[in-house]
Amino acid sequence: MLLNQVYKGCLVFSRCQTRKSFAEASWLRTLSTGTERSNRHEFNEKAQFGSSRLFMLAGLGAAAAAGFYYYTKYNLPKVLALENKVKEGTASEREPGSYVDGLPVYSSVDVAKHRDESTGVWVSYKSGVYDITHFIKSHPGGNKILLGAGVSVEPFWNLYAIHKQPKTLALLEEYRIGNLTKGEEDDSMMNMGDPYANDPQRHPVLTIRTKKPFNAETPTSLLVDNFITPTEFFYVRHHFPVPDVDLSSGDYSLEIISDNEKKGLSLNLDQLKTTYASHSVTASLQCSGNRRSEMNRTKPTKGLEWAQGAMGNAVWKGVRLRDVLLDLGIKESDENEHWHVEFEGLDIDPTSAPYAVSIPLSKAMDPRGDVILAYEMNGETLTRDHGFPLRVVVPGTTGARWVKWLTRIEVARNESQSHWQQNDYKSFNPSSDWDKVDFSTAPAIQEMPVTSVVCDPQDGETVELKDGKLKLKGYAWSGGGRGVVRVDISLDSGKTWHVAELLDPVKLSRQWAWTRWQANLPVTAKETEVWVRAVDSSYNTQPEGMEHIWNMRGVLAVGYHKIKVSLKAD
Amino acid sequence: MLLNQVYKGCLVFSRCQTRKSFAEASWLRTLSTGTERSNRHEFNEKAQFGSSRLFMLAGLGAAAAAGFYYYTKYNLPKVLALENKVKEGTASEREPGSYVDGLPVYSSVDVAKHRDESTGVWVSYKSGVYDITHFIKSHPGGNKILLGAGVSVEPFWNLYAIHKQPKTLALLEEYRIGNLTKGEEDDSMMNMGDPYANDPQRHPVLTIRTKKPFNAETPTSLLVDNFITPTEFFYVRHHFPVPDVDLSSGDYSLEIISDNEKKGLSLNLDQLKTTYASHSVTASLQCSGNRRSEMNRTKPTKGLEWAQGAMGNAVWKGVRLRDVLLDLGIKESDENEHWHVEFEGLDIDPTSAPYAVSIPLSKAMDPRGDVILAYEMNGETLTRDHGFPLRVVVPGTTGARWVKWLTRIEVARNESQSHWQQNDYKSFNPSSDWDKVDFSTAPAIQEMPVTSVVCDPQDGETVELKDGKLKLKGYAWSGGGRGVVRVDISLDSGKTWHVAELLDPVKLSRQWAWTRWQANLPVTAKETEVWVRAVDSSYNTQPEGMEHIWNMRGVLAVGYHKIKVSLKAD
Repeated sequence: MLLNQVYKGCLVFSRCQTRKSFAEASWLRTLSTGTERSNRHEFNEKAQFGSSRLFMLAGLGAAAAAGFYYYTKYNLPKVLALENKVKEGTASEREPGSYVDGLPVYSSVDVAKHRDESTGVWVSYKSGVYDITHFIKSHPGGNKILLGAGVSVEPFWNLYAIHKQPKTLALLEEYRIGNLTKGEEDDSMMNMGDPYANDPQRHPVLTIRTKKPFNAETPTSLLVDNFITPTEFFYVRHHFPVPDVDLSSGDYSLEIISDNEKKGLSLNLDQLKTTYASHSVTASLQCSGNRRSEMNRTKPTKGLEWAQGAMGNAVWKGVRLRDVLLDLGIKESDENEHWHVEFEGLDIDPTSAPYAVSIPLSKAMDPRGDVILAYEMNGETLTRDHGFPLRVVVPGTTGARWVKWLTRIEVARNESQSHWQQNDYKSFNPSSDWDKVDFSTAPAIQEMPVTSVVCDPQDGETVELKDGKLKLKGYAWSGGGRGVVRVDISLDSGKTWHVAELLDPVKLSRQWAWTRWQANLPVTAKETEVWVRAVDSSYNTQPEGMEHIWNMRGVLAVGYHKIKVSLKAD
Repeated sequence: MLLNQVYKGCLVFSRCQTRKSFAEASWLRTLSTGTERSNRHEFNEKAQFGSSRLFMLAGLGAAAAAGFYYYTKYNLPKVLALENKVKEGTASEREPGSYVDGLPVYSSVDVAKHRDESTGVWVSYKSGVYDITHFIKSHPGGNKILLGAGVSVEPFWNLYAIHKQPKTLALLEEYRIGNLTKGEEDDSMMNMGDPYANDPQRHPVLTIRTKKPFNAETPTSLLVDNFITPTEFFYVRHHFPVPDVDLSSGDYSLEIISDNEKKGLSLNLDQLKTTYASHSVTASLQCSGNRRSEMNRTKPTKGLEWAQGAMGNAVWKGVRLRDVLLDLGIKESDENEHWHVEFEGLDIDPTSAPYAVSIPLSKAMDPRGDVILAYEMNGETLTRDHGFPLRVVVPGTTGARWVKWLTRIEVARNESQSHWQQNDYKSFNPSSDWDKVDFSTAPAIQEMPVTSVVCDPQDGETVELKDGKLKLKGYAWSGGGRGVVRVDISLDSGKTWHVAELLDPVKLSRQWAWTRWQANLPVTAKETEVWVRAVDSSYNTQPEGMEHIWNMRGVLAVGYHKIKVSLKAD
């Protein structure tokens, strides 16, 4: 069944319509083993370089470039040294990847022989060959860098356009050991067009953070106008190009399997809709990195520079995941107390590894958990940017778990071993950093903590008072269905607090939606700093600032929102 | 059935063995209407003075004294004025309640005619008659003060021994309007011994906060020695004298009823044990006011002066409440989504109102909620101080809901209307105070937010370093089964953070027990301030201090725990 899935547009490989054929594409040919997803389990035991099952199994395709990206972005002493070199003008000035006379020449077959620490780890870029063995030791993503060993980094850099910055290229050049056999440098780019060419059109009002992959947020001032965020204004957070599923081809289906059930289910969208009752849920979706830009003011973190608009609220309609899992024979028991449900999307990286994450089975099975497989958003068919034809909606849980373009569900004894579950979307203490972090020590973010935002006015704005009063509007939300019970505002750094009016329903549990608030406060000063903070139904409240919750990944930036405004008397 | 219940020892009224007879006691006789608990519903509609159903229905018995206590404890301008008078020596120096020549004389029947605002509200104390009408307006407990209208305050002050302080008595005297008819002043004390005389013996290691009612905590340094807190060291928090149930009399039973089920259940302890499967749960119990003394450093709050020992961890064994409710015919549905389950104890105030509170039905019915009706604590029969013969265990929820001496369960459309649900155990913003607070705006505390404590060393201690290192030990916990995933320590006011070692199991859900932690940190200073804070599985963390979460009731004091220690090099 999987062989028939259409990945048209995923990478705009005209001849790569399925993951299998994608894996067989020439630039991966030398390493294409075990990329067929249905064979994944067989290959599991053969994985050589670490614990990341999905990636290992995806055929040791290649991800060195992603590794490089992370590595150069994060606080490696070498990066600092390089930055100094660039400042001092002593960094190599040659064009990165250009042919360098006098260096040894290696074929792509030579390069492909260097894939682990015993042989050294080599990659190529244009005409350059590089020994990146020394990257591996403290690579933040662990052994993930090895997945790209022995091949060209370029296909990755077409996916992660952000790599192509001088600093990254210059750093790569520091590891230069030779030239690639002439003629092979083009081969590495063979068939590699712009994988984002088939991405959908977006509304120009969105504030773009990166174009490729597309990541954009809603202007904050628009957010508070509607309890339900209009779909075209809704923030978009992608890791890869947007899959383009053609339902009329009959190729789309959802596969559902379980570790301990012989029975598997395979359903197309119509079957899913007609087999299970529909269920609607109004739930807010928030990126783990929402408000990262505020945290960056304490100290830079690594990730998209989100303001406060990587959040929205929508009505989602679909079928209950619980109903589907019951049909599969899953029952809650002491035995599966800590099992997980893994979701895979049709969006894949060049190793054919799909975006995949998992949530606790207990959340999936909870009748009050409201986890649905959604085919509608705000009363209309899901758009491609929001996961057409099917996405998981996990109310109360961070956006990273709401897998789009859903094609596979697996009930498993352990949580997903994907990069996004294991080595991203986690938080650490403020003194942890990339050079010494152990991702296995922190849990994957599921439910998110309470947060609140002033949407109107904006930081730095000049506001005309009305009757001597400053009008403020914003939103507040907490994870786990813990409704917001109070929003407090201070205009004097916490000496006195005002209770804001809550505009949307206050429920103490299963409150998946945000609560918008407003306040109208007398003020006489010419400028003021506004503080807002929320309290949820478990009386959790926010930390006062970002300083003590700072984390290298810039997630969970839920300190008080503080803005400065200038005031004009009326 | 209820008529047969034995309340022996509740108030040590030798002839008040049941609530009915208690209500018929002479000092309440003039107002004893509707005190029979099984008649409560009939009287509900007749309640005259407000919304507090339990109290109104309990027969308008009397609670002016409690009102006085609250009123004088809280920040009334009058109290401040009185304090000035006392300082200045201008306050009345007559013995409170003494006969004052020249004042009008009233009979207890006259006093009893003044029970609402239309007539004025009078009370008596010894030989004094007082018009406390002006107390009512801004009384923190709302109309509760009216329940004691028209009678003597003394029985209440025997219960709440803390009332008998000069300030409260002097304030009462400010409202003096007359003398009670000679002879009647003794009548008001008729049969009123020490209701606490039959309280059990306690271990002397407990730090007593009040003797009557008995409230005492575990010395913090003892807490970390054991994952399971020994029962005799476990903190005790009572509102009234300790009931003394004699199972051999056959009088004890548990009544279970539902608003929408015709069927009711009545079970004695043996029936309960033999009808339902036993279930054990390891869960920490914490008072809402734990750590209040730390919050009081910001500004005084009102409540018991708990340090960090109003918390403990125990193994509780009993039957699942869910099983009992299923037996009663309760099923979860959209209809009862927001219903509550009310618990009543055998501990009662002088109006015959039992201690009563409620929890959401969804928590009670959740198979993963682990709510049990416990008859064992730490492998032994419950002690009287911990609720013999039966207490509710509501894991992840504040101690106020863990009703002891459980005798009645009611599944109801609304949450409990008791004082303890409606007008206590709630939190407000720091700028709210008793004179302007509206208790209906805040939800009753159920799940509690994440907290952490340094237990060893103690604040102010001098510690001898070992190998230049400071050893720290403590506990951390979060409500709702959200396990503690990280404990951070800072010795430099948050500039750098160390991750503590967690000593007890880390589960991401259903983690009802606390997690003890330890750290061993190098330090060269002669003194240091230690900060600790925890992070739970929803990545909620603690506010940096108490200042911005200060609330007049002093609950939810969950800011970072900060202690100063002096250090001696080894």
